[in-house]
Amino acid sequence: MATTKVGQPLDRGTLDSILRRRMFYTPAFELYGGVSGLYDYGPPGCALQANIVDLWRKHFVMEEDMMEVDTTMLTPYEVLKTSGHVDKFADWMCKDPKTGEHLRADHLVEDVLEARLKGDAEARGEVVDEPENEADSCDKKKARKKKVKDVKAVKLEDDVKTEYKGILAQIDNYNGEELGELIQKHSITNNGNPVEPPISFNLMFGTAIGPSSNMPGFLRPETAQGQFLTFAKLLDFNNARMPFASASIGKSFRNEISPKSGLLRVREFLMAEIEHFVDPENKNHPRFKEVADTVKLRFLPKDVQLAKRTDLTEQTIGEAVKAKMVDNETLGYFMARIYLFLTELGVDPKKIRFRQHMANEMAHYATDCWDAELETSYGWIECVGCADRSAYDLSVHSKRTGQPLLVRENLEIPKVWEEWDMDVDKKWLGPRFKKDAKKVETVIESISQEEREKLAAKQKAGEPVIINVPDLGEVTLEKVEIVKREKKLYTREFIPNVIEPSFGIGRIFYSLIEHVYHYRPEDRARGVLSFPPKIAPTKVLIVPLSGNKDFDPAVHSLSRAFRKIGVANRVDDSSATIGKRYARNDELGTPFGVTVDFQTVKDGTVTLRDRDTMQQVRASQEEIVNVVTAILEGRETWEDVVKRLGLFEGQDLEN
Amino acid sequence: MATTKVGQPLDRGTLDSILRRRMFYTPAFELYGGVSGLYDYGPPGCALQANIVDLWRKHFVMEEDMMEVDTTMLTPYEVLKTSGHVDKFADWMCKDPKTGEHLRADHLVEDVLEARLKGDAEARGEVVDEPENEADSCDKKKARKKKVKDVKAVKLEDDVKTEYKGILAQIDNYNGEELGELIQKHSITNNGNPVEPPISFNLMFGTAIGPSSNMPGFLRPETAQGQFLTFAKLLDFNNARMPFASASIGKSFRNEISPKSGLLRVREFLMAEIEHFVDPENKNHPRFKEVADTVKLRFLPKDVQLAKRTDLTEQTIGEAVKAKMVDNETLGYFMARIYLFLTELGVDPKKIRFRQHMANEMAHYATDCWDAELETSYGWIECVGCADRSAYDLSVHSKRTGQPLLVRENLEIPKVWEEWDMDVDKKWLGPRFKKDAKKVETVIESISQEEREKLAAKQKAGEPVIINVPDLGEVTLEKVEIVKREKKLYTREFIPNVIEPSFGIGRIFYSLIEHVYHYRPEDRARGVLSFPPKIAPTKVLIVPLSGNKDFDPAVHSLSRAFRKIGVANRVDDSSATIGKRYARNDELGTPFGVTVDFQTVKDGTVTLRDRDTMQQVRASQEEIVNVVTAILEGRETWEDVVKRLGLFEGQDLEN
Repeated sequence: MATTKVGQPLDRGTLDSILRRRMFYTPAFELYGGVSGLYDYGPPGCALQANIVDLWRKHFVMEEDMMEVDTTMLTPYEVLKTSGHVDKFADWMCKDPKTGEHLRADHLVEDVLEARLKGDAEARGEVVDEPENEADSCDKKKARKKKVKDVKAVKLEDDVKTEYKGILAQIDNYNGEELGELIQKHSITNNGNPVEPPISFNLMFGTAIGPSSNMPGFLRPETAQGQFLTFAKLLDFNNARMPFASASIGKSFRNEISPKSGLLRVREFLMAEIEHFVDPENKNHPRFKEVADTVKLRFLPKDVQLAKRTDLTEQTIGEAVKAKMVDNETLGYFMARIYLFLTELGVDPKKIRFRQHMANEMAHYATDCWDAELETSYGWIECVGCADRSAYDLSVHSKRTGQPLLVRENLEIPKVWEEWDMDVDKKWLGPRFKKDAKKVETVIESISQEEREKLAAKQKAGEPVIINVPDLGEVTLEKVEIVKREKKLYTREFIPNVIEPSFGIGRIFYSLIEHVYHYRPEDRARGVLSFPPKIAPTKVLIVPLSGNKDFDPAVHSLSRAFRKIGVANRVDDSSATIGKRYARNDELGTPFGVTVDFQTVKDGTVTLRDRDTMQQVRASQEEIVNVVTAILEGRETWEDVVKRLGLFEGQDLEN
Repeated sequence: MATTKVGQPLDRGTLDSILRRRMFYTPAFELYGGVSGLYDYGPPGCALQANIVDLWRKHFVMEEDMMEVDTTMLTPYEVLKTSGHVDKFADWMCKDPKTGEHLRADHLVEDVLEARLKGDAEARGEVVDEPENEADSCDKKKARKKKVKDVKAVKLEDDVKTEYKGILAQIDNYNGEELGELIQKHSITNNGNPVEPPISFNLMFGTAIGPSSNMPGFLRPETAQGQFLTFAKLLDFNNARMPFASASIGKSFRNEISPKSGLLRVREFLMAEIEHFVDPENKNHPRFKEVADTVKLRFLPKDVQLAKRTDLTEQTIGEAVKAKMVDNETLGYFMARIYLFLTELGVDPKKIRFRQHMANEMAHYATDCWDAELETSYGWIECVGCADRSAYDLSVHSKRTGQPLLVRENLEIPKVWEEWDMDVDKKWLGPRFKKDAKKVETVIESISQEEREKLAAKQKAGEPVIINVPDLGEVTLEKVEIVKREKKLYTREFIPNVIEPSFGIGRIFYSLIEHVYHYRPEDRARGVLSFPPKIAPTKVLIVPLSGNKDFDPAVHSLSRAFRKIGVANRVDDSSATIGKRYARNDELGTPFGVTVDFQTVKDGTVTLRDRDTMQQVRASQEEIVNVVTAILEGRETWEDVVKRLGLFEGQDLEN
């Protein structure tokens, strides 16, 4: 069961209504009836999103000297054809011709078979519990509403039951044809309506670039391709040094068949992606030692999942890499940094796990992948993917465009080896073969080392060197010398591998809200969003006790003082009671409230209220501005402040 | 002629090559042959863009408590049909069937007629100067490359010449059919090839949302529509108070027919838009007095342009509003704030003007518009539009959706007036007219005040009250009382007007670069981008004198110290000479260089180099970090620092 920050039962309906009312986000185009999978961020949502992005930039881009790029969303067809997205970024979809609905074929099969198994259990009088911790039911499936309207309590034959369970265990493994067969064989319907056979539905939004329709394009499904295409320029910009990382923050698009579950499955979303380019032969990371022993993570590796278990292994990232559970230092370093980022945001460490992808669920470009998953009322939600894309993308783009996308490295110790050379006397070759000379040369060049060694032996034994040339047949090389020579190579070339931490900002945004949400024990309706101060959308609420004009000067000077040092603040001079105004701002997650009252007019002091404890202190305006700054910069805690200034026990304004 | 920051002739080719080489921006998809109108921002471009956006947020959103929203780019057809974009956001386009080129019809006519006029002038032996300051040739036309390849020196008849000039003067006024007629009549061709008649080409990128193709949509052409659609929610969020402003930063799209001129005409671009909702009967602004007398602008009003002149009027915004040249305080306030924003960014005040739109060039939604134009090597470029959109958008969306998008305001002084009421006895009306009673009532309600007064007079004179009801003919109201009563209204309702300052971030980005660019007098090839320190992509370059390992500790501790206080810095420990490294960073616009040398190893001091003066000071690392912070925060200038610490005259490392 989902819980709040302090362990209370979490009611999603209540939270949702706060988030809409307070304009964290609202469905887009509501005036026009809405479009599913599209949301607008209102003022607090926008500020929260900006603060998450800001921390991300500091934590990753600045801290690691990454090279941020901003590439276009419009992407020509050819690029995404090469990357594999045109062929593989698709879901299988069935149409219900009666209702006109489009359904994801795998979801349909899954939902119907699960409903039948549930009905069977009911018929057998077994206790039917929602599976709480089963590896393959904890995210994707829970995150969507159940499609099957009525679960009928019908007993199944034992072999049918076994067959169903087998199908569900490998539901990600079926292609469209196989899903179609399952639908036929097991008479799977959309609540009674037969569905059409599955067709492949590409999840990219298509468009045409330019006036003639001869340049088809798509909205990018990820920022990654834009980064890969600038790789050569970035390498040059970085003075040809490796390893390095690029980073990008921007919108990507995915034309979901039937999006539900709020911000977790949307058609337009903000991503922050890092592409760390690394030598495939050396995936160590110079800063790994900074996290190896200090960062402890909870892992759900693939072999545990294949054994249908979900128990987590907790160990330091150093241990995990040493044990080869996590493949290499760079992957491990980023996993640790992701964890530190999430906890700094305010995500509950107890609700973070790293789940390894199983072979069958990996994206087409990935060779290994760990997801940082956050636990929410929708189950465990993938919020950050950390994939090893190997050299896949750079290789395919290089091959398609004929442009080298590789690194040339000077070798400290040159590579030395021996090789058989075949030196043919060109003065003899030209006149002898005339227009066919080139052809003969090509054949000579292609002779393997092994063959050359044999030819050398023959020549030594006095035999003629005979080779086979297409169209010319057997040719005797009269003037050739076959000698073994030492070779040296001072550089090596390689296509870098890519480690990609990829952040779904909207999913982190939503999960964070669930993690910081709680309500006052005395009143369930009084929700509080306890964001860490530096992440909170607004830092300070300034509240004059009443509409009395005498309060205006202090209100304005406080607002100006906070604004000057860049502290986001809002004045609430509405006629609601102070308690109501505090409550409203608890819902907005504003950590501090400053109240201007009659005492202020006399001696200039104001009270400062802490959102989480509802305690207050009283001091001069200048001191209060300093206190807020100190807490925002992490130099003081609220406890320190209370100790220093003493609690202010004024009248109770909370209600 | 375009000039640099210090008045040197500006060579765009040289600047362009710096910008590409230093990865401010580069053409997108170059590996795949490129797509015109799409650009990628590299690391310095990305940082510069982020700093511009950051200042924008502080200067507008925070300073004015605006409500920032982030709405979706995907927009359903219906929304943009209602807003008028489906019908009017289009250009007329001609196809050259021989080359397959698509040409903007108005540009084609313009280019050909101008070329002929130029040829005529040449044939007459007149001096042919590029028009420097002509109102309608200074931006759009200069900003694209000339299409006409050869200008032939052919003399024109006098009446033909007059006709051509007349056409050019009103080129924006022709519709497609008229453009087609001009093309026919004047035998206008695409360098000799006949073109097909103009067709309307909508400039929005179309797509389909969801799996069935029954929800057509577009990529938004502006962020504004998303803001208008959230108006009612924002008003509620703002406790129903007026006026207020929303703001949004995000990408918009425009499928240009044939984009050229770099960042100035692109297909995907970052916008920052403000929608200030205001009472149509009171467009005063409470903070107008803060700028009225202090901000002096240069205006190019529409009447001057209509008189074919381009001389600028310089006056304070207070005078301009008083003289009614600028319509109202809110428009004027934003124009002043835009000016302050641009100059704070580093834009040259001498290269800013505010040009009023002429009636024929106004967007379909605007009633008045002033553009902030920046002078560049492409001419005067519209970078910020400041339009009065009146109640256009809210009205059309409200009408289309049937949802009220209006403000209800309590009147401090209730509106009082007298009205004639016609009180019909319902007990008589029902039985008398039965099923027609409703119809009779409707007719009574629709009777004008004037008519009622007449009927009252008749009744007073003892005459019957007769009215005309459709289908029933004349009807006598036997039981009616016609009385004058006092009425009071305590609230009024209105649809707000919208003042919209709309910023093209990419255009500002490019123009700013031209304004801060200059080169060392001794060497044209040594470009410098003198961004104000807080706008510069990177603030500090840390340079060890050589690869000596002894320099590493100081380099690392400096980098850490700057990073800790959020000062973007980069280490350049490449083997290039210090002079080369400085020069490289002058091109990147990095204001400060810190050099670690052998003296540092001895006493911990480092040198600090100022980009613009190339002067140096020497002090402890701590002091240097403080100096950089003080300059970034505007507490000190470089002159102050030199005065305080003294110039350091070490060896000349610049070359």
